Amino acid sequence: MIKASGLKLRFCTNETQATREKFVKKLQGLGFDISVAEVTAPAPAACRLLKERGLRPHLLVHDDLVPEFAEIDKTNPNCVVVGDAAENFSYANVNEAFRVLIGLEKPVLISLGRGRYYKETDGLKLDVGAYMKALEYACDVEAEVVGKPAKAFFESALAEMGVPPQQAIMIGDDIVNDVGGAQQCGMRAVQVRTGKYRYLTRELRETLVVAGMAERRQLGGFPGFPVSVFLLHGAWFAAGPPWCPGELPVPRDLQGPAAPLGGRPTSTSC
Amino acid sequence: MIKASGLKLRFCTNETQATREKFVKKLQGLGFDISVAEVTAPAPAACRLLKERGLRPHLLVHDDLVPEFAEIDKTNPNCVVVGDAAENFSYANVNEAFRVLIGLEKPVLISLGRGRYYKETDGLKLDVGAYMKALEYACDVEAEVVGKPAKAFFESALAEMGVPPQQAIMIGDDIVNDVGGAQQCGMRAVQVRTGKYRYLTRELRETLVVAGMAERRQLGGFPGFPVSVFLLHGAWFAAGPPWCPGELPVPRDLQGPAAPLGGRPTSTSC
Repeated sequence: MIKASGLKLRFCTNETQATREKFVKKLQGLGFDISVAEVTAPAPAACRLLKERGLRPHLLVHDDLVPEFAEIDKTNPNCVVVGDAAENFSYANVNEAFRVLIGLEKPVLISLGRGRYYKETDGLKLDVGAYMKALEYACDVEAEVVGKPAKAFFESALAEMGVPPQQAIMIGDDIVNDVGGAQQCGMRAVQVRTGKYRYLTRELRETLVVAGMAERRQLGGFPGFPVSVFLLHGAWFAAGPPWCPGELPVPRDLQGPAAPLGGRPTSTSC
Repeated sequence: MIKASGLKLRFCTNETQATREKFVKKLQGLGFDISVAEVTAPAPAACRLLKERGLRPHLLVHDDLVPEFAEIDKTNPNCVVVGDAAENFSYANVNEAFRVLIGLEKPVLISLGRGRYYKETDGLKLDVGAYMKALEYACDVEAEVVGKPAKAFFESALAEMGVPPQQAIMIGDDIVNDVGGAQQCGMRAVQVRTGKYRYLTRELRETLVVAGMAERRQLGGFPGFPVSVFLLHGAWFAAGPPWCPGELPVPRDLQGPAAPLGGRPTSTSC
């Protein structure tokens, strides 16, 4: 629908379990008109950063992501790059990354995102952020985050589109990584109630909630809709019903859902 | 030497890779006159806490520690207990603990210490604190720490000895868990330059540094030495040479070694 409208479009993902090629192939298989050139992802952003600063990474990432670092010198590492390594987060692997990091004179930890967890068909999974925190604590360092919600990540995607933040809108299901990150970059943001949608924080403002396919179809009719559209996160396309509010406990510092677009509550079927 | 002096003595350990029985047997094998009744450890402290509050734990601990929880009801868990699980910190195990925790209406995370890492013969190992931080971040909770440097842990050991903090002194190699924890409890503290000794923080005051066996033998001659002695941490007994200052990088917020007892620098042989 957005493509048909002629609006500019970019897919921003924190996917670090696969190369962009695999990610795109998966979405194409679901019927989406998408190419690798339209995808902004953390691994290529990390590669740019590594080259710029002459950094040689020790990789703690998913096996399927390794090809993204094919052209990067990984001998005699002087930094650690952590991604969503999933089953590769064994004690031995995490410990090895820790030893490399604490053995550096100036420890540099680069994290491909700061997500807490995500949902797969067999349940919730710990995301890269949890292991980033473990390494930060063990080595007394602060990670440099590449990927959402880092401001530089959004700015990079905007630059690739040639669009200023004021003329772009972000659509995603993650209140921190998608909506919060975009807002900090000066963009407006829309949260959809699919994927891992759960709640809205009090602190994040100007958030519009779009619930269900019916509302999504009205997207072109938003008042003040910008000339460019910025679309993100694979979960937005995820099959299956949206989560019910209350399906998972709401963290202490978070509040219940904000009023949806137009102030009228919308129900979510489960 | 301390036992021969008639001073009261207690061994405080954050050891959570084995039962107290195994821990004591290991030290006895090294020639130490020590019994289980003289040991204060996190697992028994956690069991007391669990019973008092009617908590049923999901255990993320080392296999060898499980017997310490033999009398605790573990059905239908309403909290997670994390210890130094070492190889048991697989992605599957950590994720399972995460799922239990985030599925609770009121998530309770109990950590058997907050250590960052420790040293074994084959190198540095990530300690329980790193995984505690991972779970804290993923579930947006704050762990309750049982073990050093928790004030309650030291108070419990003091109560078992019937000694007020002002009359006790703590000896250990860990500036945060041993020295800092004891000082926060109103005790004086001595840091030895063995085990994982690396540095002293600016913030921790009244710290006496004892380097090498020669100085240790002078312990009874300390000015103002209290009537009770509080001895801790297995690493104090560890075989092998003390670490050289500079063997590992000093975290940004920490400073070099403070002046040792009497103001005269002591050298550390490596």
